[in-house]
Amino acid sequence: MTSVSIPPVTLVLGGARSGKSAYAERLVEQQAGQRIYLATAGAGDEEMAERIRRHRERRGEGWRTVEEPLRLVPVLEAEASGESLILIDCLTLWLSNMMFADLNVEYEIERLVRCLPDLAGPVVFVSNEVGLGIVPENALARQFRDHAGRLNQAVAAAADAVVFLAAGLPLQLKPQP
Amino acid sequence: MTSVSIPPVTLVLGGARSGKSAYAERLVEQQAGQRIYLATAGAGDEEMAERIRRHRERRGEGWRTVEEPLRLVPVLEAEASGESLILIDCLTLWLSNMMFADLNVEYEIERLVRCLPDLAGPVVFVSNEVGLGIVPENALARQFRDHAGRLNQAVAAAADAVVFLAAGLPLQLKPQP
Amino acid sequence: MTSVSIPPVTLVLGGARSGKSAYAERLVEQQAGQRIYLATAGAGDEEMAERIRRHRERRGEGWRTVEEPLRLVPVLEAEASGESLILIDCLTLWLSNMMFADLNVEYEIERLVRCLPDLAGPVVFVSNEVGLGIVPENALARQFRDHAGRLNQAVAAAADAVVFLAAGLPLQLKPQP
Repeated sequence: MTSVSIPPVTLVLGGARSGKSAYAERLVEQQAGQRIYLATAGAGDEEMAERIRRHRERRGEGWRTVEEPLRLVPVLEAEASGESLILIDCLTLWLSNMMFADLNVEYEIERLVRCLPDLAGPVVFVSNEVGLGIVPENALARQFRDHAGRLNQAVAAAADAVVFLAAGLPLQLKPQP
Repeated sequence: MTSVSIPPVTLVLGGARSGKSAYAERLVEQQAGQRIYLATAGAGDEEMAERIRRHRERRGEGWRTVEEPLRLVPVLEAEASGESLILIDCLTLWLSNMMFADLNVEYEIERLVRCLPDLAGPVVFVSNEVGLGIVPENALARQFRDHAGRLNQAVAAAADAVVFLAAGLPLQLKPQP
Repeated sequence: MTSVSIPPVTLVLGGARSGKSAYAERLVEQQAGQRIYLATAGAGDEEMAERIRRHRERRGEGWRTVEEPLRLVPVLEAEASGESLILIDCLTLWLSNMMFADLNVEYEIERLVRCLPDLAGPVVFVSNEVGLGIVPENALARQFRDHAGRLNQAVAAAADAVVFLAAGLPLQLKPQP
């Protein structure tokens, strides 16, 4: 079997409906191995359930789904292996869950970044860029936007590859082309 | 007369006031032919009337303006010819008009994409990227944002060339440089 | 002493928490000379005070801070010299201050752009891209977004180098790579 090998840590960044998840899925499907879809969405939200359903339909065979809204690091450490490829969809929702649960976001982001070099298999993160609109009037939204920007910067700094998606098309940010 | 030839389908994508329309106009003006400005703005809105006025002032001679808020496909099929170049400004407003008129947006997008390969002359679409801010609190705005993202992805996939504009500067997304 | 030389006018563009300011600071610190941090933030705002504090902590030695919310052109003309490097952080806040003070924004932007070719030393502008979200419901926010887009286009057209930051990673918009 021919197989392309993906780097240890990839970040796929983009706006809403930019094709980030589909791109990340294709990336993982290029490589042989056990594919794990780590969904950070909770069950509750109707829009989220619809999103998960769409993702399930689009993904090919050979994926296992793990749902974990908060405890990202232990799940990554438990699931990563020389045989696995993990797609985390998405960091933005994880952040939102952490803020809702009143966790120490900066500490958790640091923990995530610190666990990455020791994972036994490759991981692909999907995350939203949310900082390119007008400053939100809502203080919580401004705080979320600040955390999201810092989260994206931290994971991008730790990643081997970073791709920005717009209208379904990839733009390579790292390594510099 | 020297003339550059533009590809059959081009998408010019960008934010508000990013210079998308001016870039698309310059693109069309590089090529000889009958220039058609297909405005999807309705007459009603004051801000829109102002926008059309500005565009009219900036455009050089040799443009004919066609206004069509909804029926994009028949107008494209009627106007496209071996002698014409059509600039559609913009897809985002067309989407907004369709949602206001309660049309089946997914069906209309598919119809648009399906008509493109058979058009007799080149078309340049202008469209807004609207998915890079905070999730809107308003459910209709979220729905609009989702449709807009899918519309941009569909047209980008069908296009020969896709350019992203930021601060008036183009970034080529397709073909990959 | 080895020193990289930066072009006369640079624009660093990006979203909230995209790493724009840190990137612009590193750019200035690569070159020998007297470093001036021109802060356009007023004292009043608490979030702003926090931002300035963070910036101060991050910046290395050898910076002098000048605070000027409105009168950007005379300060640039007074401070620029063959020995100086000026970082202006940021244009978006300057715009916001001008709108609050009810100044003629288009006139002030033109004045800024016209002063640039005659400055005696290099300047690096930081600015926010704010036009990639949903159209704001608030009319003032729409007006701000329009002005911000035109300001960024005007400075980008006058600049020798324009860089877009996403997740802390630079994307060169000008000169075209």
